[in-house]
Amino acid sequence: MTIQSSVPTFADRHIGARRQSDIDAMLKAVGYDSLDGLVDSAVPDSIRQERPLKLDSALSEVEVLNALRTLAGKNKTAVQMIGQGYYDTVTPPVIRRNVLEAPAWYTAYTPYQPEISQGRLEALLNFQTMVQDLTALPVANASLLDEATAVAEAVLLMRRANKNKSARDGKTVLDADCLPQTIAVVLGRAEALGFEVEVAHLSQGLPSGDINGVVLQQPGVSGRVWDQSTVITEAKERGALVTVAADLLALTLITPPGEQGADIAVGSAQRLGVPLFFGGPHAAYMAVREGMERTLPGRIVGVSRDNAGVPAYRLALQTREQHIRREKATSNICTAQALLAIVSSFYAVYHGPDGLKAIAGTVHTNARTLATTLRAAGWELGSDSFFDTLTVRVPREASKVISAAEARGINLRRIDADTVGISVDETTTPETLSAVSAAFGAGPVREAAGFELPGEVLRTSDYLQHPVFNTHRSETQLLRYIRRLSDRDLALDRTMIPLGSCTMKLNATAEMEAISWPEFASIHPFAPDSQTEGWRELISGLEADLAEITGYDQVSIQPNAGSQGELAGLLAIRGYHSSRGEGQRNVCLIPASAHGTNAASAVLAGMKVVVVATAADGTIDHADLNAKIEANRDVLSAIMITYPSTHGVYDADVREVCDAVHAAGGQVYVDGANLNALVGLAQPGKFGGDVSHLNLHKTFCIPHGGGGPGVGPVAAKAHLAPFMPGDANSQGSTGGATGVPISASRFGSAGVLPISWAYVKLMGATGLTEATKSALLAANYVASRLNEHFPVLYTGESGLVAHECILDLRELTARTGVTAEDVAKRLIDFGFHAPTLSFPVAGTLMVEPTESEDLAEINRFIEAMITIRREMEQVASGDFSVEDSPLRNAPHTAAAVVSSGWARKYPREQAAFPVSSLTQDKYFPPVGRIDGAAGDRNLVCSCPPLESFEN
Amino acid sequence: MTIQSSVPTFADRHIGARRQSDIDAMLKAVGYDSLDGLVDSAVPDSIRQERPLKLDSALSEVEVLNALRTLAGKNKTAVQMIGQGYYDTVTPPVIRRNVLEAPAWYTAYTPYQPEISQGRLEALLNFQTMVQDLTALPVANASLLDEATAVAEAVLLMRRANKNKSARDGKTVLDADCLPQTIAVVLGRAEALGFEVEVAHLSQGLPSGDINGVVLQQPGVSGRVWDQSTVITEAKERGALVTVAADLLALTLITPPGEQGADIAVGSAQRLGVPLFFGGPHAAYMAVREGMERTLPGRIVGVSRDNAGVPAYRLALQTREQHIRREKATSNICTAQALLAIVSSFYAVYHGPDGLKAIAGTVHTNARTLATTLRAAGWELGSDSFFDTLTVRVPREASKVISAAEARGINLRRIDADTVGISVDETTTPETLSAVSAAFGAGPVREAAGFELPGEVLRTSDYLQHPVFNTHRSETQLLRYIRRLSDRDLALDRTMIPLGSCTMKLNATAEMEAISWPEFASIHPFAPDSQTEGWRELISGLEADLAEITGYDQVSIQPNAGSQGELAGLLAIRGYHSSRGEGQRNVCLIPASAHGTNAASAVLAGMKVVVVATAADGTIDHADLNAKIEANRDVLSAIMITYPSTHGVYDADVREVCDAVHAAGGQVYVDGANLNALVGLAQPGKFGGDVSHLNLHKTFCIPHGGGGPGVGPVAAKAHLAPFMPGDANSQGSTGGATGVPISASRFGSAGVLPISWAYVKLMGATGLTEATKSALLAANYVASRLNEHFPVLYTGESGLVAHECILDLRELTARTGVTAEDVAKRLIDFGFHAPTLSFPVAGTLMVEPTESEDLAEINRFIEAMITIRREMEQVASGDFSVEDSPLRNAPHTAAAVVSSGWARKYPREQAAFPVSSLTQDKYFPPVGRIDGAAGDRNLVCSCPPLESFEN
Repeated sequence: MTIQSSVPTFADRHIGARRQSDIDAMLKAVGYDSLDGLVDSAVPDSIRQERPLKLDSALSEVEVLNALRTLAGKNKTAVQMIGQGYYDTVTPPVIRRNVLEAPAWYTAYTPYQPEISQGRLEALLNFQTMVQDLTALPVANASLLDEATAVAEAVLLMRRANKNKSARDGKTVLDADCLPQTIAVVLGRAEALGFEVEVAHLSQGLPSGDINGVVLQQPGVSGRVWDQSTVITEAKERGALVTVAADLLALTLITPPGEQGADIAVGSAQRLGVPLFFGGPHAAYMAVREGMERTLPGRIVGVSRDNAGVPAYRLALQTREQHIRREKATSNICTAQALLAIVSSFYAVYHGPDGLKAIAGTVHTNARTLATTLRAAGWELGSDSFFDTLTVRVPREASKVISAAEARGINLRRIDADTVGISVDETTTPETLSAVSAAFGAGPVREAAGFELPGEVLRTSDYLQHPVFNTHRSETQLLRYIRRLSDRDLALDRTMIPLGSCTMKLNATAEMEAISWPEFASIHPFAPDSQTEGWRELISGLEADLAEITGYDQVSIQPNAGSQGELAGLLAIRGYHSSRGEGQRNVCLIPASAHGTNAASAVLAGMKVVVVATAADGTIDHADLNAKIEANRDVLSAIMITYPSTHGVYDADVREVCDAVHAAGGQVYVDGANLNALVGLAQPGKFGGDVSHLNLHKTFCIPHGGGGPGVGPVAAKAHLAPFMPGDANSQGSTGGATGVPISASRFGSAGVLPISWAYVKLMGATGLTEATKSALLAANYVASRLNEHFPVLYTGESGLVAHECILDLRELTARTGVTAEDVAKRLIDFGFHAPTLSFPVAGTLMVEPTESEDLAEINRFIEAMITIRREMEQVASGDFSVEDSPLRNAPHTAAAVVSSGWARKYPREQAAFPVSSLTQDKYFPPVGRIDGAAGDRNLVCSCPPLESFEN
Repeated sequence: MTIQSSVPTFADRHIGARRQSDIDAMLKAVGYDSLDGLVDSAVPDSIRQERPLKLDSALSEVEVLNALRTLAGKNKTAVQMIGQGYYDTVTPPVIRRNVLEAPAWYTAYTPYQPEISQGRLEALLNFQTMVQDLTALPVANASLLDEATAVAEAVLLMRRANKNKSARDGKTVLDADCLPQTIAVVLGRAEALGFEVEVAHLSQGLPSGDINGVVLQQPGVSGRVWDQSTVITEAKERGALVTVAADLLALTLITPPGEQGADIAVGSAQRLGVPLFFGGPHAAYMAVREGMERTLPGRIVGVSRDNAGVPAYRLALQTREQHIRREKATSNICTAQALLAIVSSFYAVYHGPDGLKAIAGTVHTNARTLATTLRAAGWELGSDSFFDTLTVRVPREASKVISAAEARGINLRRIDADTVGISVDETTTPETLSAVSAAFGAGPVREAAGFELPGEVLRTSDYLQHPVFNTHRSETQLLRYIRRLSDRDLALDRTMIPLGSCTMKLNATAEMEAISWPEFASIHPFAPDSQTEGWRELISGLEADLAEITGYDQVSIQPNAGSQGELAGLLAIRGYHSSRGEGQRNVCLIPASAHGTNAASAVLAGMKVVVVATAADGTIDHADLNAKIEANRDVLSAIMITYPSTHGVYDADVREVCDAVHAAGGQVYVDGANLNALVGLAQPGKFGGDVSHLNLHKTFCIPHGGGGPGVGPVAAKAHLAPFMPGDANSQGSTGGATGVPISASRFGSAGVLPISWAYVKLMGATGLTEATKSALLAANYVASRLNEHFPVLYTGESGLVAHECILDLRELTARTGVTAEDVAKRLIDFGFHAPTLSFPVAGTLMVEPTESEDLAEINRFIEAMITIRREMEQVASGDFSVEDSPLRNAPHTAAAVVSSGWARKYPREQAAFPVSSLTQDKYFPPVGRIDGAAGDRNLVCSCPPLESFEN
């Protein structure tokens, strides 16, 4: 027995191949003696950083949890009645523990491989169905990032979809009763894209002039509930499209947007069970009327059938998405808020229509109680028609009332010096009502009298009639439903997910635990600074650490997805050019190999995309680059490069690329998607980048959550700092940044930042650097072992890859007919999630093992791939045709391999147990290969009737 | 849509059949119009309680969590250096979240059905292997209740096993350096059983006289580590057996008991990753030398093979256990500490031999550092040879030093006015060492010098060499191993577990969440009362609520299992008789249908068991009862009855039974195992009981944890109150109870009491009563629906059962050859855990659905049973023989049904998917039917070599 000199550190637990014997075995396969030797060969000298990172020493798990408890102790929980788009809610403990805190849910990837994603697809379909029912619109997506950006997306959707000749190029009109952060975000987006926005009091009628689209809020931020059908009718008569931003809980009681004639409904599902999280992450929603579904942004779950005719879920209409349509995409949104949408969907499943209506009814009654009490005390109310929010006129006394409430542990909304807002929610108690009354000096609470909603806004239609919303009423039932769905899926808790460009690494429990502590989870984003000291200390500390890691001067964690970070970075570049009188610079160079989101983001930032060609070795084609720079010298705004490139290779010439762009007056945007290959070794802020976004859900351990949440901080050099995201809510501050607000709340998806904060603290500079080296080793080991079976498409000058490698199947496909997709699906039979399929090169698989996978698991994957290669040879040699092969018929369900009618040309055992280690712990997918095209042809985006599952 | 008038209460979530339509459907099947009508018919008037329970109004989940936070806030966490058998430890977060907080682990039942328990059986086998390796003894059990009772079990084992003529009836000798609570518990047991115990300083040699057995402690409570081989050799030469109570972490460094010649090793595995929990639950262990395994108490996991020859785990040597051997059992222990043993086993799997040795080395170095520092400052140490604990002489200054430490947030052990104990543990930091030094006024910490352990106690042998302890080093690896094992098992998160007499109801998340909060989990059992106010308030509140529910005057939650509650109750009766000069009363009447544990407990309480016959209708045979009372009138101590009886029926004559016993001077013990049929309807303390134990892990929602923890409070009338369990640690107090201490710590398994506390608060009097009614409805519904297929063996006078029903298969078995076991195994193919098999009547199945199961799940079970009944008829009609039937060949693994060699007389689909709802979410057991007898013949109780799994 060898004796360790010390107890393992966290890095020893985070990194999979940590034993020297394993490292040596892997190095030997790659042909190196030492890990540093490998790293020195792989990473070009020209970009290596000069000194180690300066970060705090690594903490143990106990120490980091204690540090987080100390920070949590610096936040103060309060009764949150500020409202303004964020309402306290009860996350049912069974959902908190078994979804939000369950690795099976939170470590899952985006459901691009639907056969191993049926559980989360069903949960997301439930979300869509809930949104469709509550809004009375037929097609909803599976979540957007937050309400403000959802409205911005709706505005852009109206601009795309409006074909009316006069209205098409008209202005966009927002009701003044929209959430202030919504208005701020829309104004920012409109400025970049150059269309007019007018904010007006729409209950007094529409403004004159051509109108492209109208946005209403129901209830308004003032709390007012009103019959919007008149203004909607008028808008439509004038050729405008109409969006209503609506509160889903309110829609259980009031007439839904679809019944009022709206084309689009958007909003937040936060109050359906998702904690306040200091502003996010929460799922926003969008639903549209018939005919608009193909231009709807975000992901949509649809129903199709598998190869046995069994109903099966999948992402529908993916050809609209940014990774396919690039600069022609309907949106740049990639990551959504899947985990939070799933939480909200289970909340709706648990409560059902009766329960939601009862909750809404209680909220409304409590609001009426307060209104009755305050009016009796002589206070003036903004409206007599409200759901949950009162606006109270308190001439010159707003501060006094708010202080009196705060002294009673209650946060109210300061609208202005004379006006206070109060939002009632699911958690409001009789004691709270009394305390609010006392804060107004209003005496004992009176029984609600009057303030009933008028008949014209009262909902009469049914909703949530599908059995899924009417079955799971006991905790036991819901627990089993949650378990059953999660068992249908493969996530990191069962298998490596070797997805190139996605960095599916460990999401350690010590990183995850703090996010559901009430002192982090229950803080309102607009709570007074005196209550959020711990949050802000954590966030500024994380921003500082990320700046050190990336070599930039300033970081903003506001963007709540990578796509939003890209947009923020490009808008900063745009602002910078404008500030220098070079507003004409609007061309963005993007290499052909770039992720499609780059191009979509550039368009949203008001830029024109010019594609730069890729050379034969996968690097940027320098001749083409120089030509494009030359052709656009006066209008060159930026280049967007990914480093290491999406081909998984360190380009040794990156500094030259940056220099050439800088020389032409352009800025360099370095996409940080592949930062996992750089941390501790090289800093984009030092080798030529002016601005980058990072993906905390890749490199910094925020779990993918089945497709979100993500956090996409933007990091920039000092000259871009003034153009970093500003605060959409005027009541906050952003440390001097005055740029366009990117998210609804100041700190974006604050709620999950403790994860990345903890990761950096747990690893320290040494651990982070070792993780990067281990990631390189793992990728090069896979490349070395598999190259003879599946040629590695690109390598760097040293013959090495970076942190991922592209396996080229095109020649094999041509020879055997077996496609990369067949291989991806066949891996499911081995219990694996597939690598990235056909990105960035069609007909290839891109493998990124990350540092967290151990040698045994990597070898298990290699064994599977080699076994699959042998099956491809069986096709080639005529043992079976490709159509009759286990590859094309993969994945195999239990029902298929158990069937008495088995008539395949290969034995059942080969289908189900292609390697012997599978026999005891076999994962069977719940459905077989899914026909995606059929689902798109016949689009069904809500829960199918139970009968469709009958044989 | 029907509108609920209010938001659902917790009771609406706890109770499965809560919709009126479901209740009506069930009532109709039973033949009643109303639930109250059914209840009134089922429950005899003679026992109905006169008034509703007086409990606090039901709280919501939010309210109960807030109340628990308030209580938690009244506890003070500190650096715990008291030691004395309890040491702080780091529960790796990945284990906390994925085992301790994971329903798949904590809702599992005891692995009596091994085919659906392979995961937890493997984890428990790992525990046994760890204990065997560390103690160097060949056979360990799968945990005992706590260290003190484990020593008591060892003492009894030595008394049973010692066949040496002169030594056999000699005294038991305990070293004075044993834990004080151990000595107290052993003395209490010895008093009841009438054997002599001497406490002596054994390092100075053995006392004279005949010695049955010797107990040593290593390290001693003083911290001293010494070479015990000389005294062990002498003891054995004199015919005694030897037990060593040893610290498992210390055994990574010091010579293990097996190598020192001990016959038995016992101790606690707490410090291997299990929180302090204010004293419990923790897993104790016991290992024995070869030849003693068949008399070893507790459960033992063994390795056998399944029907395909695959290695498979199961509980071995069950014929020794109390439920089989009754008054001849080796122990009364039933529930163990499975969940905690599993946590400790994963801790060992994660750290492996190197990691454990590194932890122990750090602990030892830190202790040496403190010793060096304190000696340099002039303090006198009790011993120079120690592992983790120092005894420091501080003449007349103990209080001062302890106060100085407490002021620095550190708890030390006050041994007496002149002596302080300090125990270092895994969590000790350099700052802690400095603070301790400061508390002694000893100046800066000095580097450790001297105090190396002497060569003769230094361990040289290897341990934990099995691959399972040398594989799972990264968090990802361990996470997947944990998931893989849990996926092999069926627990409440996937299926109902309709086990009669076990009350497998919902373990709600809101009940579970608080137990891992540091303010509950990190409190030392001997922390000063000023730091434990919240704990004590919670416990006294729970005791008061349980007294109200049962109708008794006083409750003690100290017994940490039902068996211990029985013992506590019987010892109270014993003490009561003695106090009245009636010490001759030592006969305990026990009905033939009683659970075997009753008889075993009576024996341990020094009583003689007299069995009372059962009448044909399942009730107590009154003629026999009266005859037995008459025959034992002068020596009658007690009767132990279960109510409702183990036959699942309310006996209307129970008051007469109680009166008859009372009239003869006896006491009535009402076993509370079936309290779930009584809460809110009848109170044992009011209808004739003098004392009862309850099972908080049945009626009061503590999860079964795969075989523990349990809590078995004893509840008694006022005249027995003085004889309730006393405190084994003289430093505590028990509110006046002066009886025999039952557990090592004052509040037993305090750590899980928040679960039951929360359950009572969440349900309130109304909710608890409704739960009982719902449990009755569910059982009677099952009985009504299944009676025509499987006759219900016993019903009460009204033709109704109580909360469970016995299905009689004996006639069917005689006719078809299909046994009750076949049915139990076949249910696995439907995804069900089997009902209780052959208890209390051989050849039957006892079904208890509990109130938490919903109608759909109950119907799914009924459908499965009816389908099975049809398969039995297929045997009868000759479609296939019983040997060739899907019943006898059940359960079917995936490997079996996928095999190309399938040659059964029934199709694969019938085997795997006997009902169509199974196809997508099928549970396949990892092994087929296990040959239990073969495993007992060839006993293997440690991890088998990997090669044995190869085909």
